[in-house]
Amino acid sequence: MHAPDRKQVVIVGAGFGGLTTAQSLAKADVDITVVDRRNFHLFQPLLYQVATAGLNPSDIAWPVRSVLRNQANARVLLGAVGAVDTAAREVIINDGRRLPYDYLVLATGATHTYFGHDEWAPIAPGLKRIDDATLIRRRLLLAFERAENTDDAALRRALTTFVIVGGGPTGVEMAGAIAELAQHALAADFRSIDPRDTRIILVEGASRLLGAFPESLSEVARRDLQRMSVDVRLNAQVIGCDAQGVTLQKDRIDAHTIVWAAGVAASPAARWVGCAADRAGRALVGADLSVPGHAEIFVIGDTASVKAADGAPVPGVAPAAKQAGQHVAACIRAETEGKPRPAAFRYRNFGNLATIGRNSAVIHYGRLKLSGRLAWWLWSFAHIYFLIGMRNRTLVAIQWFWNYLSYGRGARLIVGSDTRPPGAP
Amino acid sequence: MHAPDRKQVVIVGAGFGGLTTAQSLAKADVDITVVDRRNFHLFQPLLYQVATAGLNPSDIAWPVRSVLRNQANARVLLGAVGAVDTAAREVIINDGRRLPYDYLVLATGATHTYFGHDEWAPIAPGLKRIDDATLIRRRLLLAFERAENTDDAALRRALTTFVIVGGGPTGVEMAGAIAELAQHALAADFRSIDPRDTRIILVEGASRLLGAFPESLSEVARRDLQRMSVDVRLNAQVIGCDAQGVTLQKDRIDAHTIVWAAGVAASPAARWVGCAADRAGRALVGADLSVPGHAEIFVIGDTASVKAADGAPVPGVAPAAKQAGQHVAACIRAETEGKPRPAAFRYRNFGNLATIGRNSAVIHYGRLKLSGRLAWWLWSFAHIYFLIGMRNRTLVAIQWFWNYLSYGRGARLIVGSDTRPPGAP
Repeated sequence: MHAPDRKQVVIVGAGFGGLTTAQSLAKADVDITVVDRRNFHLFQPLLYQVATAGLNPSDIAWPVRSVLRNQANARVLLGAVGAVDTAAREVIINDGRRLPYDYLVLATGATHTYFGHDEWAPIAPGLKRIDDATLIRRRLLLAFERAENTDDAALRRALTTFVIVGGGPTGVEMAGAIAELAQHALAADFRSIDPRDTRIILVEGASRLLGAFPESLSEVARRDLQRMSVDVRLNAQVIGCDAQGVTLQKDRIDAHTIVWAAGVAASPAARWVGCAADRAGRALVGADLSVPGHAEIFVIGDTASVKAADGAPVPGVAPAAKQAGQHVAACIRAETEGKPRPAAFRYRNFGNLATIGRNSAVIHYGRLKLSGRLAWWLWSFAHIYFLIGMRNRTLVAIQWFWNYLSYGRGARLIVGSDTRPPGAP
Repeated sequence: MHAPDRKQVVIVGAGFGGLTTAQSLAKADVDITVVDRRNFHLFQPLLYQVATAGLNPSDIAWPVRSVLRNQANARVLLGAVGAVDTAAREVIINDGRRLPYDYLVLATGATHTYFGHDEWAPIAPGLKRIDDATLIRRRLLLAFERAENTDDAALRRALTTFVIVGGGPTGVEMAGAIAELAQHALAADFRSIDPRDTRIILVEGASRLLGAFPESLSEVARRDLQRMSVDVRLNAQVIGCDAQGVTLQKDRIDAHTIVWAAGVAASPAARWVGCAADRAGRALVGADLSVPGHAEIFVIGDTASVKAADGAPVPGVAPAAKQAGQHVAACIRAETEGKPRPAAFRYRNFGNLATIGRNSAVIHYGRLKLSGRLAWWLWSFAHIYFLIGMRNRTLVAIQWFWNYLSYGRGARLIVGSDTRPPGAP
């Protein structure tokens, strides 16, 4: 039970940042409450594999309660935060409950943005949540089923055309994974569809893919995707999405399945606490990751805008969020022990990874640039290593091994319902 | 491609009966079309493990296309059948397409019935489809989360009370699995709930559980469930279900989570073909499993009513459906080869299995009655054996091994949405 005389730490969000904060406070003399809308921590970097039927949802998700089961000073609360009362120092849950805090850590992540075109959301779902992934999986698989069922050549072509908007890591990974699904896992299963009919189009507004990587690796990604028959369109602006396809500035693509992997918008954490924000809505925090004027409130992860020591922005990746969580925990622990907070947050870049497909990935670490088969194996091992618990590591390793040997995809279930059937006029 | 001069076999339903029929016709000179509303074959006997977070949906489901991938004379069609035109010999899909047939095999299974109280369906979901299982999983896990969040003792008690209606194999398995989930997998994860508060109540209208088994095994099941703290209520009639609980003839149980495992209603196959049916709607078929007056139409599995050679009804279990599928395939193959159909269908009973929980199951085979640990291990091996493919066998075996050693449940995700939140007034 929580003790009234101990400092109350409320952490909102059980992603990489929030969970690391809680775990790093395991030995601190504080009471921790982790609040999340979901009952699980999600390993987002592999979400695209759920969307493309390579893995199961529960392979990359863990109940937050189980992760913190043995940490006696932490409790978990399922609930959606609606506001923060910074004067009373209380977090307000949507059901009306109020959680008093001495320290507040907001690690609520980001979502995708449609650049003012929210009406595109039901047509071109993004990939942030488990439900997004199973929806995209449903649409991908159903598109092939419908293509098999029709004799209309134009309709079949639109059904087997897949557009991914955004050429960052998620877009590149989705394009590669859909190509493998269509060309290998599904190819032999259909009688009427020719897998060569499948078109996968990756649309990127900038002049190269993977903008955060060195140019030579962007070129590797482009070349490897094209080798997998992905049509990469650079310098291409999306000006419209509808149930029949995508309109580019200079082109029109008839496609019934569109995946959105562009544009990041921060969660409303900055608004909750009245903190200045950048254009994406990320809270502009100080060197110790606290909100200016509120030393007791920290904002970390994808919903914070932080400058590294050299002035470069800290990227919105899992390792950065984890490091920020460790830093915040160190600040809180220091103060509860009557010591000053540690020096400013420093982001250590352990490299950038993105996978393109079977035997193809790119790694950038300092001066090291790696691509191809070795990079892919390193990427695979790194991701298995970072999964939580032996159960999930074993299950993912076995499924990847099976997928690798058989070219198959085991999680090809069409379940649930979709309010907007793909291709509905 | 299908050849016009070959006999066209249309199989509706890709469950145990339909899939076995298709596979048994692999070497026959016919063209086969398997139609199903779902893109996967479901191993229904383990569905309760998905509902209780022990297994993933895709561990017990396979894309029908993959299963039949290498069978050149079979194609798969995703679609819902709405009617059969027996005069024109055409199956009518809901989207208007018509499939001509020379032979028609209806293997469309059964659903649950609420004995005229369909208004109970959203409150007390049954367990027939993957979506049912994930809905029940969602409600079970959410009930514990809500109980953890409330200080109202009566509400907490209603939230941690689970009622299972029906004491057949599904009801017994669900009751045991919920007990293990509550008492082991979840117990250490919550801070405010005492697992001893969890009440699991199994309601059965008859005077014993597992009516298809010998009485001594029914008694074993009752005793083992009570040892697991399941409250078994025999001779108890449900007269009402609402969002707050269940009303029995002599009692009222406040419970926010109710699972329906009683009452089987056949699919409308008999109505489609104008065949006489029993009270549960099952088609009354002849000794060769064909519809009287329509030698070209067969009805098999849970949607058919068949008498065994000794006059006893053939049970609605997977082995019976598979055997019926083999028999129908033999009839069709014989006729295409100009031979008479084989003698009447004979059901070979390979025994009856039901599991209660960890180290507890019952097996009945001829004069053999087995219970306890050995029965449980046999049950586990038999179920792994009957799964399709090495991938799923390996994944299920590993997860069971992990569940057995750790008492944990790995698939504890609350996903999707529920139009009726549990406990909504």
